[in-house]
Amino acid sequence: MSEQPKLASLDDSIADRLPSHVKELFDAKRYANLTFADLAERLGRDEVAVAAIFYGQASASPEDVRILAETLNLAPGRLRDQIGSVFPDRGRAGPMPPVEPLIYRLYEIVQNYGYAYKAVINEKFGDGIMSAIAFSTKVEKEVDNDGVAWVNIKLRGKWLPFTRF
Amino acid sequence: MSEQPKLASLDDSIADRLPSHVKELFDAKRYANLTFADLAERLGRDEVAVAAIFYGQASASPEDVRILAETLNLAPGRLRDQIGSVFPDRGRAGPMPPVEPLIYRLYEIVQNYGYAYKAVINEKFGDGIMSAIAFSTKVEKEVDNDGVAWVNIKLRGKWLPFTRF
Amino acid sequence: MSEQPKLASLDDSIADRLPSHVKELFDAKRYANLTFADLAERLGRDEVAVAAIFYGQASASPEDVRILAETLNLAPGRLRDQIGSVFPDRGRAGPMPPVEPLIYRLYEIVQNYGYAYKAVINEKFGDGIMSAIAFSTKVEKEVDNDGVAWVNIKLRGKWLPFTRF
Amino acid sequence: MSEQPKLASLDDSIADRLPSHVKELFDAKRYANLTFADLAERLGRDEVAVAAIFYGQASASPEDVRILAETLNLAPGRLRDQIGSVFPDRGRAGPMPPVEPLIYRLYEIVQNYGYAYKAVINEKFGDGIMSAIAFSTKVEKEVDNDGVAWVNIKLRGKWLPFTRF
Amino acid sequence: MSEQPKLASLDDSIADRLPSHVKELFDAKRYANLTFADLAERLGRDEVAVAAIFYGQASASPEDVRILAETLNLAPGRLRDQIGSVFPDRGRAGPMPPVEPLIYRLYEIVQNYGYAYKAVINEKFGDGIMSAIAFSTKVEKEVDNDGVAWVNIKLRGKWLPFTRF
Amino acid sequence: MSEQPKLASLDDSIADRLPSHVKELFDAKRYANLTFADLAERLGRDEVAVAAIFYGQASASPEDVRILAETLNLAPGRLRDQIGSVFPDRGRAGPMPPVEPLIYRLYEIVQNYGYAYKAVINEKFGDGIMSAIAFSTKVEKEVDNDGVAWVNIKLRGKWLPFTRF
Amino acid sequence: MSEQPKLASLDDSIADRLPSHVKELFDAKRYANLTFADLAERLGRDEVAVAAIFYGQASASPEDVRILAETLNLAPGRLRDQIGSVFPDRGRAGPMPPVEPLIYRLYEIVQNYGYAYKAVINEKFGDGIMSAIAFSTKVEKEVDNDGVAWVNIKLRGKWLPFTRF
Amino acid sequence: MSEQPKLASLDDSIADRLPSHVKELFDAKRYANLTFADLAERLGRDEVAVAAIFYGQASASPEDVRILAETLNLAPGRLRDQIGSVFPDRGRAGPMPPVEPLIYRLYEIVQNYGYAYKAVINEKFGDGIMSAIAFSTKVEKEVDNDGVAWVNIKLRGKWLPFTRF
Amino acid sequence: MSEQPKLASLDDSIADRLPSHVKELFDAKRYANLTFADLAERLGRDEVAVAAIFYGQASASPEDVRILAETLNLAPGRLRDQIGSVFPDRGRAGPMPPVEPLIYRLYEIVQNYGYAYKAVINEKFGDGIMSAIAFSTKVEKEVDNDGVAWVNIKLRGKWLPFTRF
Amino acid sequence: MSEQPKLASLDDSIADRLPSHVKELFDAKRYANLTFADLAERLGRDEVAVAAIFYGQASASPEDVRILAETLNLAPGRLRDQIGSVFPDRGRAGPMPPVEPLIYRLYEIVQNYGYAYKAVINEKFGDGIMSAIAFSTKVEKEVDNDGVAWVNIKLRGKWLPFTRF
Repeated sequence: MSEQPKLASLDDSIADRLPSHVKELFDAKRYANLTFADLAERLGRDEVAVAAIFYGQASASPEDVRILAETLNLAPGRLRDQIGSVFPDRGRAGPMPPVEPLIYRLYEIVQNYGYAYKAVINEKFGDGIMSAIAFSTKVEKEVDNDGVAWVNIKLRGKWLPFTRF
Repeated sequence: MSEQPKLASLDDSIADRLPSHVKELFDAKRYANLTFADLAERLGRDEVAVAAIFYGQASASPEDVRILAETLNLAPGRLRDQIGSVFPDRGRAGPMPPVEPLIYRLYEIVQNYGYAYKAVINEKFGDGIMSAIAFSTKVEKEVDNDGVAWVNIKLRGKWLPFTRF
Repeated sequence: MSEQPKLASLDDSIADRLPSHVKELFDAKRYANLTFADLAERLGRDEVAVAAIFYGQASASPEDVRILAETLNLAPGRLRDQIGSVFPDRGRAGPMPPVEPLIYRLYEIVQNYGYAYKAVINEKFGDGIMSAIAFSTKVEKEVDNDGVAWVNIKLRGKWLPFTRF
Repeated sequence: MSEQPKLASLDDSIADRLPSHVKELFDAKRYANLTFADLAERLGRDEVAVAAIFYGQASASPEDVRILAETLNLAPGRLRDQIGSVFPDRGRAGPMPPVEPLIYRLYEIVQNYGYAYKAVINEKFGDGIMSAIAFSTKVEKEVDNDGVAWVNIKLRGKWLPFTRF
Repeated sequence: MSEQPKLASLDDSIADRLPSHVKELFDAKRYANLTFADLAERLGRDEVAVAAIFYGQASASPEDVRILAETLNLAPGRLRDQIGSVFPDRGRAGPMPPVEPLIYRLYEIVQNYGYAYKAVINEKFGDGIMSAIAFSTKVEKEVDNDGVAWVNIKLRGKWLPFTRF
Repeated sequence: MSEQPKLASLDDSIADRLPSHVKELFDAKRYANLTFADLAERLGRDEVAVAAIFYGQASASPEDVRILAETLNLAPGRLRDQIGSVFPDRGRAGPMPPVEPLIYRLYEIVQNYGYAYKAVINEKFGDGIMSAIAFSTKVEKEVDNDGVAWVNIKLRGKWLPFTRF
Repeated sequence: MSEQPKLASLDDSIADRLPSHVKELFDAKRYANLTFADLAERLGRDEVAVAAIFYGQASASPEDVRILAETLNLAPGRLRDQIGSVFPDRGRAGPMPPVEPLIYRLYEIVQNYGYAYKAVINEKFGDGIMSAIAFSTKVEKEVDNDGVAWVNIKLRGKWLPFTRF
Repeated sequence: MSEQPKLASLDDSIADRLPSHVKELFDAKRYANLTFADLAERLGRDEVAVAAIFYGQASASPEDVRILAETLNLAPGRLRDQIGSVFPDRGRAGPMPPVEPLIYRLYEIVQNYGYAYKAVINEKFGDGIMSAIAFSTKVEKEVDNDGVAWVNIKLRGKWLPFTRF
Repeated sequence: MSEQPKLASLDDSIADRLPSHVKELFDAKRYANLTFADLAERLGRDEVAVAAIFYGQASASPEDVRILAETLNLAPGRLRDQIGSVFPDRGRAGPMPPVEPLIYRLYEIVQNYGYAYKAVINEKFGDGIMSAIAFSTKVEKEVDNDGVAWVNIKLRGKWLPFTRF
Repeated sequence: MSEQPKLASLDDSIADRLPSHVKELFDAKRYANLTFADLAERLGRDEVAVAAIFYGQASASPEDVRILAETLNLAPGRLRDQIGSVFPDRGRAGPMPPVEPLIYRLYEIVQNYGYAYKAVINEKFGDGIMSAIAFSTKVEKEVDNDGVAWVNIKLRGKWLPFTRF
């Protein structure tokens, strides 16, 4: 049996906490045998954003809907109802603290370095926060000279100072 | 009263959950009127790493101890005992979920995009995790053309595939 | 594909914790293509109150039932049984602490300013509470001179002093 | 014994979770026999903001420090170190869910109406959140024609749409 | 549409945590258009006890079963199997802390006055507890001279002193 | 050693979560060898209310302060600052769920009968709550014909219907 | 309607957390109208052990399976697959802390006397534990001279000293 | 160094959650070099009861106070104030779920066999509970024929049927 | 009825939190009457790894899929989709803290010896962690000279030192 | 400043939850500049066991006390009272789930592989558990041919089958 490229799939044990169309999207993606990178390229969006749409954590524009419907061979009207004309109900994709090791590591970074980030950001920017809404993020693969792979995650959020009132 | 540059300080309401030397370090830093950027430059390390040392979340090399002692006018032997010859007991700087708004936003990013990151990273790298140990991170300030400030956080961790056994 | 105005929808992943008629109501509203503002106008009630009825968090008068049935083309008897002749079982619409970013911000306001509100209200009114039952609330949109949009939420509750006994 | 106007005070059972200067501020305020309304007038700020400074949940400008020091007869340098040149570590004033009845009622409003707010705000503004950072709030007393007192709380936050990326 | 007297109903979002016959009972009661007061009168029991039977929190005697079956037009054998010949599995009707405002207020009374009750009861009775098993309770409506309605709840439990051993 | 009447005392393991004057009050009461019933009689208030003042869960009027100071031989000015001119920070006397058996039984009553109370109260009063603020409570001792002691607790709260808005 | 002896039944609201055959067993037992005492006698085992098998908390020997199948008129092969050839997944029968009053009392005994047991057992046996695996338990009914019933529960576990290593 | 019999001691890491006299009692007991069995014999009470007094979980009679004071060489008046004339605030000796292995095993028994006990007790006694107040308990050591030690714990509580009301 | 060797089975009360194919795999394994040791031998992998695949906690190579399909008589394509071409969503097999006694004991070891392991590993290896990803584990049975069985579990993980940055 | 070998130390932020002598032991060890391996060799015990004694999680024999007192230059009588003649109160060294990354990885292993261990152990040994009391553990360092370090942890516990009763 020859190896087939692995695709992210929807473990049906988490499907319950997500909108029901999530499963349809993952099934269609698997059928089309496309990665999130493939989809991101067609949509002109970032991979993480596209995956977030699939998990019901981000919304899609009419153009996104059109392209996704075409690419994944889905009915555009139905798809628009599912991801285009709705306001996502965010924050439910997984339990917190995360139990999945990959996601836990991100949580651990917040746990270990949270106050260090706050101290450095406060000194650099003042009293405020980095927005998680006016925000984008990106994952990149780096292979160093020894052939070792490194994951690079970039977070970019607007600086919001606390209003004086 | 003229405005003095603000420095990250240790809220004594969180001091209890940290090693007792943490307060000494923050006091010395305030007295020396130095930012973490100032200290990072002298140590040749990243600001977040230096702040992590201050919060008891990272260890310091003998050279780090020497420079910090000199810069902050602290007794080198005592400082070595506090941050140089110990193994940090990490993960205690703050409560999880974070209640501090700045830190909460980072947590929210994990909550909202955790599975999206997993999906994208799995497709790009395979079955494994991004290490939070063989790991570095960095905060950068960006000001866009409209004069709007953006926070950029970079996370870089070694890719660790699950061992087959 | 032309953009269609987006309507609040019921993420079916939260439908489980709500009475089963909630889904019917949201489906009928979407079909009728009406906003909560549209419905509020017809009912002579506030938008938030109408949305609360939809989420099973408020009750409807016979007149409300009549108008809603007509507007949404629903069977009046059935609708009366669902929202008119029942006592809502409140407090279940979402998890607490909220994971949805929009709702979390409201929670964060209580977290950050709770004691400040208490101090100010105690000094202004005495020893008691603002009722959340003899209570109304309203959301308004404001656009400032720079074209920036602001959300205004008003809470109005009866003052209840602690009884001396 | 003649009745003396009651002032908000710091219950020492919550002092532990706050910075140590909080107690000093409340003591000075009581000694000066001033309400938050009195202080707010002198500072030209809102009462809730002033109370938030007292609870360590907001920062003070140099001018705020100067006026407060004068009004409360505190050493300006020390006060600047306590509330002027620091970045508040927010979110710790009380437990969540709140156990204090006055604060619990605010929490209950979020619990009961959270999704109703989300639905109405989404339909009025789109996909995003009301900022709790670019934010102000205000408490007002209303006495209706029957002599009944009502608490009015206003929340005003900048609208932040989710960035497309 | 004329107003119909409202009856307590079973929100199907809580039905899951209760025995399946609970729904049948509530449906039959609604169909018969009877209040708990009506049923209590026929059974010669207290309203709260009858409601507790409906929620699966109390058991019914053979005579109770007979009368209820007759009154609600239910099959006596089936009803006996459901509520007459079983031992209730108590404590599941709702989440704790309660999220329903009416029930939360009862919880808040325990939270605020728990130790005051203990102090007063200990001084009046000694070292022991008020039984919640050898126990009855009652709800009464009072309308004062100003036409204001008051809820009166009476709790009566056997005094159980701690055994000396 | 002759038996001395037992008085409610403050277990110092819970003193930490209460204002510091609580201990002073309990010590003075013990020294004066008075029960809450004794104090209630002198104050013309209910025993539970007096105990609640002692636990920092209720406020005292100037007259209450005067009488208590006299009865317990405490400095009136200091006592006024402690319980007379403050706004209690309620809800902290004990952990929830309660671990103390006497208090747990009250909690269990809410747990077991909460929905039964709601159903009965809704049918008797409509859609609303029993106030825990416009509220009084009372503990009475009953000895039945068999010499068995029973605890009677009465809760009386104002009926608050949900406002239509 | 004559009273029929009550049998322990399976509240279907807890059936979800148990293996699906649990319901079949309880139904068969009710149909056969047998108590756990009846079954225990036929199996030569203790009642608690038999009830534990029914709740999926203990395993059955081939002989147990044979007798139970015969007594309850169940298919032996199917029964063997359900309770005879499996390793029970213990600990799920109910929530902890228990909400059922009968079970809560047992929990409360551990809560109140846990350290007292530890102190007494340590002094009697040394440093170790009473096994809950090499363990048996028994419930007995006692009626004292006044006709009062008492429940006697016996726990017997092997003493396991901590290994020195 | 010759081995000295080990006595239960008070780990000062749990002393914080207990009344302050607990430490005094344990110190006096160690000084007197007496086991709980020794004390129980002198008091004519059960060992577990005596240990419970030491942990602040049970009260002492005047006679208990007199004998303990004499035996442990403590001031009787002070001891009466500590354990004789107070009402214990029970339930705080340790965290739940227990982390101590010996106590956890007892908790695990409730977790695993809780419903089995309920089923058996219900069938034997009816609808009610075993009291944990009108209750006694005892620990016995058994050594079987193979020299293996077994811990026997006996629980004996009054049967309390649910009152019909 | 002759005793049949017992096989690990999937308690359907935990099946809900696992991917749906888990049940299919366990059913096939039972039908084939094979232990994990049998399967491990055919796959040339460790038993724990094989069991982890069955619980959806580890991934399978194309060769693993081929052999398993053959051995268990499953459709290879379907099996590849289930366990071969997916990225497992780990960490969901059971609740934490574990309620199953066997698994709880492992948790207890971490609870009791966690800091001891950290201290010893830090001194032996420096500042870092043992990877749970670049990791293997093994269970072995040992029978000592007295015929007593011992479980040996071996954990082997790559040492990862914290990166200096 | 020359590098000094690092020793495990006691972060004083965790000292609060441990017996007070823990700090004394760690200080003495640091002063003596000895590793746990050094101490283990002198005591003829395992390093993890020695570290467990230091964290108050294991007891020491008279001989252990004698050698430790000598080696660490501590008063033998005092040391015997601290670690020799007491019964450890286990399970408190750290929070669960662990926040320390090194300890979390062990927890994660239980989380991910817990059911796999159970399945394999059940099939190999039957229905029972691996004892965590009749138990020993060991940490070993391995360096592979590529110079990569691996941590090996061995757990060895007595097999305890569930008693039939």
